[in-house]
Amino acid sequence: MGDAGEGREIVLDGTRGARTGIPEIVYGPGKTPTQVRDAVVGLIEAGVAPVIATRCSPAQIAAVTAAVPDARVDGPTVVARALAAAADGGGAAPGVTVVTAGTADQAVADEAVATLRAFGLRVERVSDVGVAGIHRLLDRADDLRRADALIVVAGMEGALPTAVAGLVDTPLVAVPTSAGYGSSFEGITALAAMTASCAPGVSVVGVDNGVGAACAVVRWLRVRP
Amino acid sequence: MGDAGEGREIVLDGTRGARTGIPEIVYGPGKTPTQVRDAVVGLIEAGVAPVIATRCSPAQIAAVTAAVPDARVDGPTVVARALAAAADGGGAAPGVTVVTAGTADQAVADEAVATLRAFGLRVERVSDVGVAGIHRLLDRADDLRRADALIVVAGMEGALPTAVAGLVDTPLVAVPTSAGYGSSFEGITALAAMTASCAPGVSVVGVDNGVGAACAVVRWLRVRP
Amino acid sequence: MGDAGEGREIVLDGTRGARTGIPEIVYGPGKTPTQVRDAVVGLIEAGVAPVIATRCSPAQIAAVTAAVPDARVDGPTVVARALAAAADGGGAAPGVTVVTAGTADQAVADEAVATLRAFGLRVERVSDVGVAGIHRLLDRADDLRRADALIVVAGMEGALPTAVAGLVDTPLVAVPTSAGYGSSFEGITALAAMTASCAPGVSVVGVDNGVGAACAVVRWLRVRP
Amino acid sequence: MGDAGEGREIVLDGTRGARTGIPEIVYGPGKTPTQVRDAVVGLIEAGVAPVIATRCSPAQIAAVTAAVPDARVDGPTVVARALAAAADGGGAAPGVTVVTAGTADQAVADEAVATLRAFGLRVERVSDVGVAGIHRLLDRADDLRRADALIVVAGMEGALPTAVAGLVDTPLVAVPTSAGYGSSFEGITALAAMTASCAPGVSVVGVDNGVGAACAVVRWLRVRP
Amino acid sequence: MGDAGEGREIVLDGTRGARTGIPEIVYGPGKTPTQVRDAVVGLIEAGVAPVIATRCSPAQIAAVTAAVPDARVDGPTVVARALAAAADGGGAAPGVTVVTAGTADQAVADEAVATLRAFGLRVERVSDVGVAGIHRLLDRADDLRRADALIVVAGMEGALPTAVAGLVDTPLVAVPTSAGYGSSFEGITALAAMTASCAPGVSVVGVDNGVGAACAVVRWLRVRP
Amino acid sequence: MGDAGEGREIVLDGTRGARTGIPEIVYGPGKTPTQVRDAVVGLIEAGVAPVIATRCSPAQIAAVTAAVPDARVDGPTVVARALAAAADGGGAAPGVTVVTAGTADQAVADEAVATLRAFGLRVERVSDVGVAGIHRLLDRADDLRRADALIVVAGMEGALPTAVAGLVDTPLVAVPTSAGYGSSFEGITALAAMTASCAPGVSVVGVDNGVGAACAVVRWLRVRP
Amino acid sequence: MGDAGEGREIVLDGTRGARTGIPEIVYGPGKTPTQVRDAVVGLIEAGVAPVIATRCSPAQIAAVTAAVPDARVDGPTVVARALAAAADGGGAAPGVTVVTAGTADQAVADEAVATLRAFGLRVERVSDVGVAGIHRLLDRADDLRRADALIVVAGMEGALPTAVAGLVDTPLVAVPTSAGYGSSFEGITALAAMTASCAPGVSVVGVDNGVGAACAVVRWLRVRP
Amino acid sequence: MGDAGEGREIVLDGTRGARTGIPEIVYGPGKTPTQVRDAVVGLIEAGVAPVIATRCSPAQIAAVTAAVPDARVDGPTVVARALAAAADGGGAAPGVTVVTAGTADQAVADEAVATLRAFGLRVERVSDVGVAGIHRLLDRADDLRRADALIVVAGMEGALPTAVAGLVDTPLVAVPTSAGYGSSFEGITALAAMTASCAPGVSVVGVDNGVGAACAVVRWLRVRP
Repeated sequence: MGDAGEGREIVLDGTRGARTGIPEIVYGPGKTPTQVRDAVVGLIEAGVAPVIATRCSPAQIAAVTAAVPDARVDGPTVVARALAAAADGGGAAPGVTVVTAGTADQAVADEAVATLRAFGLRVERVSDVGVAGIHRLLDRADDLRRADALIVVAGMEGALPTAVAGLVDTPLVAVPTSAGYGSSFEGITALAAMTASCAPGVSVVGVDNGVGAACAVVRWLRVRP
Repeated sequence: MGDAGEGREIVLDGTRGARTGIPEIVYGPGKTPTQVRDAVVGLIEAGVAPVIATRCSPAQIAAVTAAVPDARVDGPTVVARALAAAADGGGAAPGVTVVTAGTADQAVADEAVATLRAFGLRVERVSDVGVAGIHRLLDRADDLRRADALIVVAGMEGALPTAVAGLVDTPLVAVPTSAGYGSSFEGITALAAMTASCAPGVSVVGVDNGVGAACAVVRWLRVRP
Repeated sequence: MGDAGEGREIVLDGTRGARTGIPEIVYGPGKTPTQVRDAVVGLIEAGVAPVIATRCSPAQIAAVTAAVPDARVDGPTVVARALAAAADGGGAAPGVTVVTAGTADQAVADEAVATLRAFGLRVERVSDVGVAGIHRLLDRADDLRRADALIVVAGMEGALPTAVAGLVDTPLVAVPTSAGYGSSFEGITALAAMTASCAPGVSVVGVDNGVGAACAVVRWLRVRP
Repeated sequence: MGDAGEGREIVLDGTRGARTGIPEIVYGPGKTPTQVRDAVVGLIEAGVAPVIATRCSPAQIAAVTAAVPDARVDGPTVVARALAAAADGGGAAPGVTVVTAGTADQAVADEAVATLRAFGLRVERVSDVGVAGIHRLLDRADDLRRADALIVVAGMEGALPTAVAGLVDTPLVAVPTSAGYGSSFEGITALAAMTASCAPGVSVVGVDNGVGAACAVVRWLRVRP
Repeated sequence: MGDAGEGREIVLDGTRGARTGIPEIVYGPGKTPTQVRDAVVGLIEAGVAPVIATRCSPAQIAAVTAAVPDARVDGPTVVARALAAAADGGGAAPGVTVVTAGTADQAVADEAVATLRAFGLRVERVSDVGVAGIHRLLDRADDLRRADALIVVAGMEGALPTAVAGLVDTPLVAVPTSAGYGSSFEGITALAAMTASCAPGVSVVGVDNGVGAACAVVRWLRVRP
Repeated sequence: MGDAGEGREIVLDGTRGARTGIPEIVYGPGKTPTQVRDAVVGLIEAGVAPVIATRCSPAQIAAVTAAVPDARVDGPTVVARALAAAADGGGAAPGVTVVTAGTADQAVADEAVATLRAFGLRVERVSDVGVAGIHRLLDRADDLRRADALIVVAGMEGALPTAVAGLVDTPLVAVPTSAGYGSSFEGITALAAMTASCAPGVSVVGVDNGVGAACAVVRWLRVRP
Repeated sequence: MGDAGEGREIVLDGTRGARTGIPEIVYGPGKTPTQVRDAVVGLIEAGVAPVIATRCSPAQIAAVTAAVPDARVDGPTVVARALAAAADGGGAAPGVTVVTAGTADQAVADEAVATLRAFGLRVERVSDVGVAGIHRLLDRADDLRRADALIVVAGMEGALPTAVAGLVDTPLVAVPTSAGYGSSFEGITALAAMTASCAPGVSVVGVDNGVGAACAVVRWLRVRP
Repeated sequence: MGDAGEGREIVLDGTRGARTGIPEIVYGPGKTPTQVRDAVVGLIEAGVAPVIATRCSPAQIAAVTAAVPDARVDGPTVVARALAAAADGGGAAPGVTVVTAGTADQAVADEAVATLRAFGLRVERVSDVGVAGIHRLLDRADDLRRADALIVVAGMEGALPTAVAGLVDTPLVAVPTSAGYGSSFEGITALAAMTASCAPGVSVVGVDNGVGAACAVVRWLRVRP
């Protein structure tokens, strides 16, 4: 066998958490189970917290949990060394509400929820409030107002963040998903719609990027270990 | 001068109205003022009604009105031989409400309105009810329910038809417009969003195609002279 | 195991049928068999009719039919509590003709047909009348004229709705499909072509969206239980 | 002034006609009037025939006609040294029919016509036979069958070549145009639709490329001076 | 089981061959083996010739050959009742040369070859003459000139038809393929490049559409049984 | 003249500020000078603050300033009734730093700055720190850390937000601009790049949407009059 | 007047030349004449060489030349403090040949030529060698082999770099241009084609980016003042 | 069985190495194991060096190594007759550093590395220096400066080549990869971003085209056996 891969190294960015508030996150696809495990263990040994790996396959999860038995597994997301509390004063940790338009958006929301909890944030969910039944959203307006921040997840026509941003003054991040019938075009439709929103103040992360939305919230709430 | 254009003819489709309920409509762009005038006059002489020309330049309008003094001009739309009433029973003509998300969608709505009136339909307008202020839409729900049909016009993220379709049971046609800030991409975003709508029962015409939406309504309401 | 999914709920929109004429429809992809079954049962228990689930996998269908033995299964579509008749006067239910360009468009047409029947509409089919053999379409013109509404389904170059709309005055909804050789680009070509139709009065739903087209017809015909 | 342009040369491909049957054609945009004139004169002096310049501005045309007084001007197309006859046997020159869907497609058709005539072909036109009024096309079927070849020009949904190819056995080239309302997307819709045609045997040139379609016909008919 | 598919019919277009010179062709994908077999048998019984089915799966091929033992199978293409000779005068049948840029384009070329032979045409092949080794193409120029028509198949940057069209005067049809490294984008790059060719006279069929290219040649050569 | 525009109304959303923290903003394009003026005056009379109009033409600005002499004009942005201070405790107003990659991004940044100041926020600018000269960015890291929030504006390859998000822990919103040479594709490249950022925590608004980015910051900082 | 633009600064990257071999280049569009002049003068005063400004309007050029009378102007490109010679040994400066497919590609080539000369490189041009007349390219093969590097500029189908890379072993950079008839799509077709080239070793810069191609050559030839 | 594939030939371009410095490379996908083996053996027998086959399946690799036991296998890349040394003077072979943004880009980098080594170049790797942790890149600046050339591989937002090009003066080729979360769109985002780079002198190969990047370096370094 050849050795084109020789000289390959994994260079962990151990100071990213101190620098940016968000430590390096391990992205599963394209890595071997051993690479994922080594990255997670390396970050733990470097004292990083929280340690998060996303989009892991069952084999990658097995490799990690064999080495890190108390890692928490939420679907394809693995978390170790979760922060205990992210309160910024002494009171309760900030609370984030993750809002979804439909059931097909739940997997993306789950990734956001697992990430938020890894950072010690309190999380609530408001589900199935797509704009085709706008009264369901209106009924939950007070819940949305109570949150410190919102993550709004929607596929198809991607209209939910616009409706939410026009209803309450809670800060929010929008996540387009690749869910949908018809002309969703793997999330491009929702991405374009959300960045063209007629409601000012909506900002958007990439398609299906639940972890990215959670990190944006962590930045804005200035969560610190 | 050469004569590549020799042999060019304008072949009017004089029986289209009888066949499809919607006579041939003259589309201004790419025609000389003389061509537009001749097409309009030709349709009038063939007994067609209504005779509609859209997207006409001032020079095209001048050419038409010089030849057809009683043509009605609405912005770039010219109408001759409008139907007097489209009532299908003996009662009042059906009423169509044209709904717009914002002021920038008005020009497209105007084209739809002029076309609907040419076919003898009653028209009302509900303006500025974009989903960023959803209460404005809710306040007008009874008006929307009273209509026989709706045309819903929106640019940007194109969410309004979805919200309307989830609110009332009035039949509707959606029109994406090229209006908008940010990532509207000349209406492609709204077109994709509307055809990906999570509210079943929304059908859509092309970008900025107000006349097409009006014609779809005319078909469904089975307007006849 | 973690619990990012905790707090997930399914919030059925039980009043959507009363509000919009079209009850909530269960979309299979992305849901577990249990979620599909619970949604269907929940809607039945809420008194909704008809109850429709689309794009269901065999496992989802098995879960539903175990709980709802008299549900009707048409390919991947499941229907319970179909409406008995949708006549709006006392006479026969309205009749809808579903027109397809080629055999590859049949699966999308089947979804439309199952949905129309769930709403108690009479359905006929006209198949294989693509514009490459235009005489086949002309031969069926009287059949098309007799219908109360048409659903026109086509992939590839998507020309059929334009030809139909220029031939008869029956109202229609067009459905682009992802079928096709060459440059069909998963239905985008047909979607663009149909929304750019030179025949005014054609409105369009998303790619492969048979259920959406049927719901648009239900809206326009103002079917009521 | 600097001299980045120094060393620029125009290298005419004087043998292209002998090699490929189609001499080099001068494309106006991006050239100065002097460059267009010099290219035309250079080709004439090299004995090339026909000499064709397309998409010329008025200033470019003026420069050419000042130097070549007997050049023939057809809109933005200029032709010198047109072939007298392209008969391949001794009989009449082959006849080509240029078919257009609507008036907005005429400018592209004119470019094709001027090019065909430059090669000595007989040309007829069939206009305004878009598929929204399919009977107009059927009425002209015998005319289409009589031609040695067809050029079929259409914008919007681009359905006309498919209908023609399903109607007659005359060879044809399709030309998408950038004309159109709604979702024509500058001709991309028609280009995609034509290359996805359900009628086998349709081949297509680029958007608005009338001269290219004419040259394809010249190749197939094996026109020779 | 339900019956949404009831009323489905297969309507063969038995007169298409007489009308257009090219009989209906059966497209495999999306059909059951029984549907493919019935369509082939139906066309044979209607006296159609040749009968061609493309892109057939092994199960579809097995179904057809069980019913039509002497059908000829070329990869996924099945042919019955091939024409014996397509000579247009009494001499030899016209000869078509199928040119490919690389080995990855061969499957598309095979589909073209099988179709051409079904119509009784003589076929030769020139392979591996991509423009990155232009001398290989130049070495075969005389072979290309001898043909009555060319089909030029290329993926990647799609440059080969342009080079061929600039080299010889033989008529040609270009076929973009989805083959390629880098930025081929499933054939869109080659399709765009071929329709933007700087060599006038190149016309193009859809991506991977070998059968369509062959049919275009059949039309131009006016093959008749 | 006709009256398709009759019945047009401008319905201001006077309670949007109270509801969402961000009052309705007047978007200039597509409105007459009178419409812009009336909208601005209407919002002022409704007690809204701040009142902002963006992308105004000189004629629109003239109409507004004639009616509202103390309106502040910043390029094409007009502001009336700016908030005096947005401090959320009693201390200084929060400070936002607007970061630009190059001079061509300045106009978008100006829109953001004018909007931030209208809400009473303190603004600083860091200019010309594109990643092609990364040391310029590193030199300003302390300035970036001192801010309460960042708006990062970049065109071309859109890499700056990623670099900033990896350098400091200050919350940020990214704005793609349509500036750029080469393959910027009117900002689509930067939009896609920013939403695909490898730095978690970057959220993005639409192309050139400076006002939207400012409003997102206002939401997150929970500015209140 | 307001002051959103206050605080704007121009931060020149004076050490970029020392760091990367290529000093900061001033890009005209989106800057005022004063900004362009100040940037050019600032770079001169900082001792940078060469100083290059691209895509300048006549007003920008006038502003620069008023302040820097000996600046050299080549179309829209302005150069000051050009390097005298870039020889890397003591012999002649390296020679670069700029190859163009057609006349419409000349403006992009001119930008490359002016930039190369600013760095003291010798430049030759080979023009009008598009692949539609491949013999013109073959005739110049020795000229191409003699060069130290090639810049190959082409629009339309963008095939020229592939042909050149298959013909000679001289290193090359390809530049797609937005020139072209048909389906060039503003250079996207050529960009995609060049990056999908079947000839290994072709690398590509952005659409119309002549200056970028020249800078790539400067890097590879390791030109130093 | 039919014989559409008859007449197929593999025409090796045995002189390409002498002509262009880079011999023909065998591309695995779309070929049978036998075809790959025959192509490799044929090139070896023609005296070509090096002989490289890329993207080979295990079956293709098995076929090659059975026939060529000493072929070197690096993942899906197979190399025979690698060059011993590519030194251009007598000293050491030039050294190329392959830089990757993240682990997901490694497979593309491996293809580049195996190709570079086949040509006898020395290779080093710098891994995991994505711009989200820019200090990791700065720490390696001296390593980058020491190289004779760089290949910079990145997916997602594709910013790394811009940062590298602004940091050091080493010549470089950029490779976009299809790796990434969010809105990477299979590498199109990175491709567009790299060709829109604000750092002049970056040239780019196609998506995931590691072998193409290596060949570009081989050309520029003028490696000769």
